[in-house]
Amino acid sequence: MIRVFILGTGKLAHHLVQAFKNTNVHLVGFYGRDEFKVDAFHKQHGLESYSSLASIPDYCDVYFLAVSDHAIESISNQIKVKGLLVHCAGMLPISILHAQEHVGVFWPIQSFSEHISVDFKSIPICIEANSEENQRILESLADKISRNVYIMNQDQRQCLHVAAVFVNNFTNHLYSLMADFLQTKKLPFDLLKPIILETANKIIQHDPRLTQTGPASRKDETSMDLHKKILAEYPDLLNIYNVLSQSIFLHTENK
Amino acid sequence: MIRVFILGTGKLAHHLVQAFKNTNVHLVGFYGRDEFKVDAFHKQHGLESYSSLASIPDYCDVYFLAVSDHAIESISNQIKVKGLLVHCAGMLPISILHAQEHVGVFWPIQSFSEHISVDFKSIPICIEANSEENQRILESLADKISRNVYIMNQDQRQCLHVAAVFVNNFTNHLYSLMADFLQTKKLPFDLLKPIILETANKIIQHDPRLTQTGPASRKDETSMDLHKKILAEYPDLLNIYNVLSQSIFLHTENK
Repeated sequence: MIRVFILGTGKLAHHLVQAFKNTNVHLVGFYGRDEFKVDAFHKQHGLESYSSLASIPDYCDVYFLAVSDHAIESISNQIKVKGLLVHCAGMLPISILHAQEHVGVFWPIQSFSEHISVDFKSIPICIEANSEENQRILESLADKISRNVYIMNQDQRQCLHVAAVFVNNFTNHLYSLMADFLQTKKLPFDLLKPIILETANKIIQHDPRLTQTGPASRKDETSMDLHKKILAEYPDLLNIYNVLSQSIFLHTENK
Repeated sequence: MIRVFILGTGKLAHHLVQAFKNTNVHLVGFYGRDEFKVDAFHKQHGLESYSSLASIPDYCDVYFLAVSDHAIESISNQIKVKGLLVHCAGMLPISILHAQEHVGVFWPIQSFSEHISVDFKSIPICIEANSEENQRILESLADKISRNVYIMNQDQRQCLHVAAVFVNNFTNHLYSLMADFLQTKKLPFDLLKPIILETANKIIQHDPRLTQTGPASRKDETSMDLHKKILAEYPDLLNIYNVLSQSIFLHTENK
């Protein structure tokens, strides 16, 4: 039975523990710096807690650094483990774990939120390791919680990270901007929910490049001029409107 | 039994007929200009077809102008009906139907695609009419196919139209851009599907303003600099990246 240790008490740590609980992996314990968070994490998951890096057990097979990007190198430098130490950051190289002998990357392409449960099985996990043996360990571990495990190098991971920013962070920001905009107009954001869901669901079966609709894609300047008039008091929205409409324009031209 | 006539053979006409088929509405027939499309529409839906505007029956209760925005005024000017004539365009005023006595607007907030079926029941329908009696007729008709019927004026409809452009057209364009980008990197777009679905599904229960994540929202300039380096060869993507990151920045500052 593979022994796993989790470093971190945040969203990713929480979701990892949740996912491994349904497998035959032995969760040995977790480390956290913040006493309050350690307590809450322990209460929620019933795992043994370690609040000093010096005390964490050195006999586990895999250690997950489920901590903020900026803490990864520093923690890796402070501990000495025999097992495989992996970080979970899409943008960081494997070499940031230079203090350890057995290292890897385990990056799930998902944005985790505190109180929103996810189906880990469908989340793609990108892995990389510094030896074939370590890669095999990570792969078999990832296979236990996800149906979509990919071995890839740092360049590929970083490109996917950029792409995730566009389709997740930027998309969510467009939703946020419209929640604000409709609020100023005293209109409920709920009215947009069906079209938001439909827009996303469409890509399951259809190439988004073939389903583009809207004024910019059909060069309907009458509608676009009216939109710009409505957005005139919102310079940030108007700027985004112009940049994205122009990009759709270019994209449609080039077809 | 309310008698409905459809003008148009495109996506909206198709989805309207599909929706009314499951109700006690009497679909009298449809009009189309293009012989080939009229034939296909007739074969698919079994409705009586009319290919000249002069020949369409004048005794129906409601006529739907499910045609392109630019054709609405012209068709309205060419026909003479006793019933209620409605257009389905979010951006156009009710006054564009000035040639008729009983007029209205019937705008579903959804982007329809050719071969993708939708659950009309969940689609919000925004209606407006030029009299209380006409409004009642439209409302009862809309209630037959949707659970979400809203009476609203032109200004409100136009604001919602702008918002739909942001959350539907722009979001889909971000997906398209990333489909292209990943293709140049020989990475499958499929890897993004789970995070796209999760991003959209999250808004059902959570205010998007509270779930924003990513480098721009946490001011992680290290990741952002790396992203910009990766996008350096793609000026259109880099421009969008900068504009949207800057907007997220501003938005986070103001909280």
